Amino acid sequence: MEAWARGVRGLLLDISGVLYDSGGSGGGVPIAGSAEAVRKIKASGLKLRFCTNETQATREKFVKKLQGLGFDISVAEVTAPAPAACRLLKERGLRPHLLVHDDLVPEFAEIDKTNPNCVVVGDAAENFSYANVNEAFRVLIGLEKPVLISLGRGRYYKETDGLKLDVGAYMKALEYACDVEAEVVGKPAKAFFESALAEMGVPPQEAIMIGDDIVSDVGGAQQCGMRAVQVRTGKYRSFPVGGRHLPSTYTSIC
Amino acid sequence: MEAWARGVRGLLLDISGVLYDSGGSGGGVPIAGSAEAVRKIKASGLKLRFCTNETQATREKFVKKLQGLGFDISVAEVTAPAPAACRLLKERGLRPHLLVHDDLVPEFAEIDKTNPNCVVVGDAAENFSYANVNEAFRVLIGLEKPVLISLGRGRYYKETDGLKLDVGAYMKALEYACDVEAEVVGKPAKAFFESALAEMGVPPQEAIMIGDDIVSDVGGAQQCGMRAVQVRTGKYRSFPVGGRHLPSTYTSIC
Repeated sequence: MEAWARGVRGLLLDISGVLYDSGGSGGGVPIAGSAEAVRKIKASGLKLRFCTNETQATREKFVKKLQGLGFDISVAEVTAPAPAACRLLKERGLRPHLLVHDDLVPEFAEIDKTNPNCVVVGDAAENFSYANVNEAFRVLIGLEKPVLISLGRGRYYKETDGLKLDVGAYMKALEYACDVEAEVVGKPAKAFFESALAEMGVPPQEAIMIGDDIVSDVGGAQQCGMRAVQVRTGKYRSFPVGGRHLPSTYTSIC
Repeated sequence: MEAWARGVRGLLLDISGVLYDSGGSGGGVPIAGSAEAVRKIKASGLKLRFCTNETQATREKFVKKLQGLGFDISVAEVTAPAPAACRLLKERGLRPHLLVHDDLVPEFAEIDKTNPNCVVVGDAAENFSYANVNEAFRVLIGLEKPVLISLGRGRYYKETDGLKLDVGAYMKALEYACDVEAEVVGKPAKAFFESALAEMGVPPQEAIMIGDDIVSDVGGAQQCGMRAVQVRTGKYRSFPVGGRHLPSTYTSIC
């Protein structure tokens, strides 16, 4: 482990499933030792950035919740999909129909949403009603060139009361219904990791991503030239998924 | 057309989008001339069977509605996914968790649903709430060998007030979340068409399928050795879908 980590100057830390499990009346429960780990990383002199696919709240609200749970974290240290999506929408003159959590809507306050020419889907949770998903479908299929932007492609995540379907499942539903391929903003998109690395000021070969998702965190970071560690908290499951075991050579360090 | 149809002894007729458009307070609106067409087909001596992926109601309730709309149709003339699924469940000792429309549940009255070892998804419409879809996901991902049975794989259908997402979109969501492939019962499954042909007593080369879905109706029938006609009612769209035009050689007769 020591040799493997040599030359590392910066860490990208996933939040949900790594620092805390979301859900419940308090908004979540810290994972044992994680607040202390953040403090130690910061004290060590390593550069640190939080790299999350969280889209159930604005960064302000999300960070405030994490501070309340005991974490040393600020909005300026967080890379999240919604601001990245806003940059993309502005660059390309796209006006979104939003299929997102109510608490995320303020992130799009500056964006023109009249007469939509694309759909943006995030982790809308309870907002994924049939009526809402169908409305997004109708907007998308009514466009001459349907553009679907997905804030991540996660399959599911863990809350305190169990596993929850993530945005990826609904992205797939809309992709299939309209015969389009979504553009993913957030992990595992390469541009998203590159943006987080640039904000941290560390090249990929000197950074490590730490997360609980083998595709979004580990796979995405590796595609970008980083090393990655998969923690065994959050959604990590030691039993087979989809009837298949993880490869026998699999370890936590990828 | 006359030469093309020579040797035909039987017709399989799709219902939704071909005979009527569903939805609205009366349960649907007949498509002009369709009730008369059914009468003419029956009077002509051609064998006729209704081959539907309808899963929003029991066959009894569905047929009663169609009779009320003026169609000469009986339960014994209808091939539908739910009874086919029940046969499959019994054969393989499967106990389903149902993600279906409330009105379809009576079709599964004889099936043991305790301690589920598979998920059956149908066109649940408003029942596709986040909570319900997530519950089905949790059952499926909790199984050592997840089995997902989908009553059709349609992308969308047309109701009187517009297009509606069909079961296929939610099938894809669950497939992606759990990394499984659904077994499709209903069109375009070959076994489903074969069952309809056997019930009609006509071999595939002497039968024509008439429907509004290029994949479920036309593609499925062709895979089975039948000819097919795509009507331009129902969900048929003459403008591009997903940014792509239909092939220029495309005609209504496939």
